[in-house]
Amino acid sequence: MMDEKLLSLSNQVGQTLLKCQYSISTAESCTGGLLSQTITAISGSSAYFMGGVVAYSNPIKEQLLGVNRHTLETLGAVSGQTAQEMADGVRRRLQTEISLSTTGIAGPTGATETKPVGLVYLGISLPERTWTFECNFSGDRLQVMRASVVEILERLLGLLQ
Amino acid sequence: MMDEKLLSLSNQVGQTLLKCQYSISTAESCTGGLLSQTITAISGSSAYFMGGVVAYSNPIKEQLLGVNRHTLETLGAVSGQTAQEMADGVRRRLQTEISLSTTGIAGPTGATETKPVGLVYLGISLPERTWTFECNFSGDRLQVMRASVVEILERLLGLLQ
Repeated sequence: MMDEKLLSLSNQVGQTLLKCQYSISTAESCTGGLLSQTITAISGSSAYFMGGVVAYSNPIKEQLLGVNRHTLETLGAVSGQTAQEMADGVRRRLQTEISLSTTGIAGPTGATETKPVGLVYLGISLPERTWTFECNFSGDRLQVMRASVVEILERLLGLLQ
Repeated sequence: MMDEKLLSLSNQVGQTLLKCQYSISTAESCTGGLLSQTITAISGSSAYFMGGVVAYSNPIKEQLLGVNRHTLETLGAVSGQTAQEMADGVRRRLQTEISLSTTGIAGPTGATETKPVGLVYLGISLPERTWTFECNFSGDRLQVMRASVVEILERLLGLLQ
């Protein structure tokens, strides 16, 4: 059901978090739960994974994650600033050392002139600072979701090394 | 990446929700995001799926979903009452017509004398009432998660018919 690459990455992240004694939370839009599901596929993940929010609609991004309405109205839900505010928001509300966020256009619908299918912003909030990454993935809806999860877990491992 | 049965069930649920003009939200513990990921695997699901909460730790079940501390302390997180309060809580907070909840022991660890691996409580909150179901699934961690998602989507389809 879950592919070996995702399980392997999730296992590496789990081992690293246990070593650092860091807890983690997630705020997902375009990955729709795949990120938290990948993290929790590992037995024992409840030692570091506290929980997450799947914020599909904009009101929920505001209400549960504290994303600024002004950010959503001016820059849009698919933006680096929204990814940053989602990551910061979930980290603060769930009181974890680390948080991850995803927002993008998984397709096949939803693209605009300036925001194509496959455009995804990732946020990684660490105790010292929050990083955001702009990515352009190709493939169908599930491939864009999967690529986003691979990318954010690899980036997190890179930042924690 | 996602199996055909889950996609087919999710598609049926989506078509039914669109027909009824009902929105939906999720509150997941033991499925860890697989339920919301199954719902959002369908293109166009943002028309009915507002969002969800993955409440892995008890404080997050209380804080984000409004589950009673007394319920968690006396009946435990893996109980029908917790499933009911998770479903009611997410439906109220995310203001949807329908909500789904899962709480259980996916294993391989976490079992107690009275609560074996595979014991899962599902909650389905509809406008008229909230239903809970006790299930005993067999299999490994991912199989228990998958069986929980299949069961709750089938139960929802049954209730909406």
